[in-house]
Amino acid sequence: MMAVKYELIKKSNECNARLGRLHTPHGIVETPIFMPVGTKATVKTMTPEELKEIGAQIILSNTYHLYLRPGHDLVEEAGGLHKFMNWDKPILTDSGGFQVFSLGDLRKITEEGVEFRSHLDGSKHFISPEKSIEIQNSLGADIIMAFDECPPYPSDRDYVKKSLERTTRWAKRCKDAHKNPETQALFGIVQGGMYKDLREQSAKEIIDLDFPGYAIGGLSVGEPKEIMYEVLDYTAPLLPEDKPRYLMGVGSPNYLFEGVIRGIDMFDCVLPTRIARNGTVLTSHGRLVVRNAEYARDFSPLDPECDCYACKNYTRAYIRHLFKANEILAARLATIHNLYFLLKLMENIRKAIKEDRLLEYREEFYKKYGYIK
Amino acid sequence: MMAVKYELIKKSNECNARLGRLHTPHGIVETPIFMPVGTKATVKTMTPEELKEIGAQIILSNTYHLYLRPGHDLVEEAGGLHKFMNWDKPILTDSGGFQVFSLGDLRKITEEGVEFRSHLDGSKHFISPEKSIEIQNSLGADIIMAFDECPPYPSDRDYVKKSLERTTRWAKRCKDAHKNPETQALFGIVQGGMYKDLREQSAKEIIDLDFPGYAIGGLSVGEPKEIMYEVLDYTAPLLPEDKPRYLMGVGSPNYLFEGVIRGIDMFDCVLPTRIARNGTVLTSHGRLVVRNAEYARDFSPLDPECDCYACKNYTRAYIRHLFKANEILAARLATIHNLYFLLKLMENIRKAIKEDRLLEYREEFYKKYGYIK
Ligand SMILES: [Zn+2]
Ligand SMILES: [Zn+2]
Repeated sequence: MMAVKYELIKKSNECNARLGRLHTPHGIVETPIFMPVGTKATVKTMTPEELKEIGAQIILSNTYHLYLRPGHDLVEEAGGLHKFMNWDKPILTDSGGFQVFSLGDLRKITEEGVEFRSHLDGSKHFISPEKSIEIQNSLGADIIMAFDECPPYPSDRDYVKKSLERTTRWAKRCKDAHKNPETQALFGIVQGGMYKDLREQSAKEIIDLDFPGYAIGGLSVGEPKEIMYEVLDYTAPLLPEDKPRYLMGVGSPNYLFEGVIRGIDMFDCVLPTRIARNGTVLTSHGRLVVRNAEYARDFSPLDPECDCYACKNYTRAYIRHLFKANEILAARLATIHNLYFLLKLMENIRKAIKEDRLLEYREEFYKKYGYIK
Repeated sequence: MMAVKYELIKKSNECNARLGRLHTPHGIVETPIFMPVGTKATVKTMTPEELKEIGAQIILSNTYHLYLRPGHDLVEEAGGLHKFMNWDKPILTDSGGFQVFSLGDLRKITEEGVEFRSHLDGSKHFISPEKSIEIQNSLGADIIMAFDECPPYPSDRDYVKKSLERTTRWAKRCKDAHKNPETQALFGIVQGGMYKDLREQSAKEIIDLDFPGYAIGGLSVGEPKEIMYEVLDYTAPLLPEDKPRYLMGVGSPNYLFEGVIRGIDMFDCVLPTRIARNGTVLTSHGRLVVRNAEYARDFSPLDPECDCYACKNYTRAYIRHLFKANEILAARLATIHNLYFLLKLMENIRKAIKEDRLLEYREEFYKKYGYIK
């Protein structure tokens, strides 16, 4: 019995988009889906009930942060991450690799793993593939990720090849270390940078290890969007049709559309929640900086076409006032709106796939949002 | 037709406590009541729906802050404070006097009013009794307060006498300036410091002006609690029985009990929300600093006897983690709990008055809370 099973419902007649269902120990996720990020065991500013109300089906939490604080042993003692944070729907944890590699001078990579210093207190730590899985087993998420290396952009071919081969060896070690395959699904991650043959090599090696799901890593690392689309064009079709496909760290509306059209099922990104806390919201007519003076006396909602809690009950003028006054409710309302906006977008995308009019919907959305002038 | 009417339901057989109902343009308030403070048109961290869920019947907002930002003209343009902040139950606004007098060197008092510099940008402003009422008329709260002077503690008798007499002259000017007596009830404020004869003089002068409600000002300004109780002992009985009585700036559990027992109907205080944001919660066994290391692995609720949202769903360990990680949900959960704790306390106090067992309930509460060792 596998922890997570992907059910393919429908393939688009227009493109590589697909409609599916992810069966997990904590319920079913309709795909394609966007996963809000709850880095430190909380989706910033939100309660679990509010997340459910806006349609969140699955959230992502970060192994690196929870390992450092409060510690995975404490979370395990609390009964696991679901119980600790009071979220009874599916959770995905990343491997910690991305955060550790982002530490720059504070980390050192060897075949064995990565030595690093905590960004909190400078204390020394070591995370190996085995350690990452040990932490993720303690946290108890429904989906856990293999410990991989994500090369920066640009990286030369030689480095990317060596890196992806190590990622394969690490993936094997992760699989061997995984203690709960019946309750937690370990996803493999395909690397290979922006090189077609290396993506093919990585996909083959990782798929050979037979994981219940696959992620495409190493994208959205600073490359032009055309390159990302091109990599997706040739990488997504390499992945088995009967397993879910997850594009890591991507969440702007155009990336969601383009990813889905190329056959991706799962996305996550901190962007919508991060910009919300700084006073920027996504609307059907593009981004809007509600902090700006021009909205001081604007008594219309953030997005007149949105029916989220924030838009139904508050004006731009009020939310701007809250931002200027540094009130917590400002971040709450903007976060609710931004996440609702993306979750609603994914719902509309699923509907459009069902009705074979995704390309038309994309055109319409892009024009209104301002992607197409 | 007066904006606010007090209905006396029952007088305690044991003490001066009374059960009543305040009829306002935005609904009925069961008294005695504690009013959460929403300084800048938001009770920090909370939505209006959450406030209703924990039993808030009326909230207080601050004229000084709203005058400076976003400006009372903007709030009026938005349709008034209720509409601006999406709160459809009663609101009380203070006069701005207390904040302005607290500015110290930044303000200068004359018979005409108070000149002061904004704590935000140093800009110069002038608030007179007429200006305070003009602002409060724009905000549109159900209950508005006369512009008074609140002398510090200790103050000499001569100063307090001169000050209370000016407060009376200002109260008359406030009454004359008030434009909406049919939709907003203007309360008078009794001053007189810690001097019995001056309290008597102030009460007589203010009551002669015939307001629909009366506040006792100038308490909880640093005096020992025995002195506050003594002042209440002789001041509360001076106020007419058919009008509501409001003790300003008081909200710790013992002050609520002692105020009610002496005949007070309304209270407000920023303390429960302020200490919540710093990680301190009120529990049936006294204050608890949930930030402290001793709660790191404590998987019990903030207060095992509380049935608020925070206590029903989260552990001390989780909430401590949120505080250590500077997560907004920490302040939200602690605020919900602290306000619920005080609102529930007031509900229990009303029940105890009804059943003539308030003194017994006080004894029981004080023992458990730790006021009595
Ligand atoms: Zn919205
Ligand atoms: Zn509670």
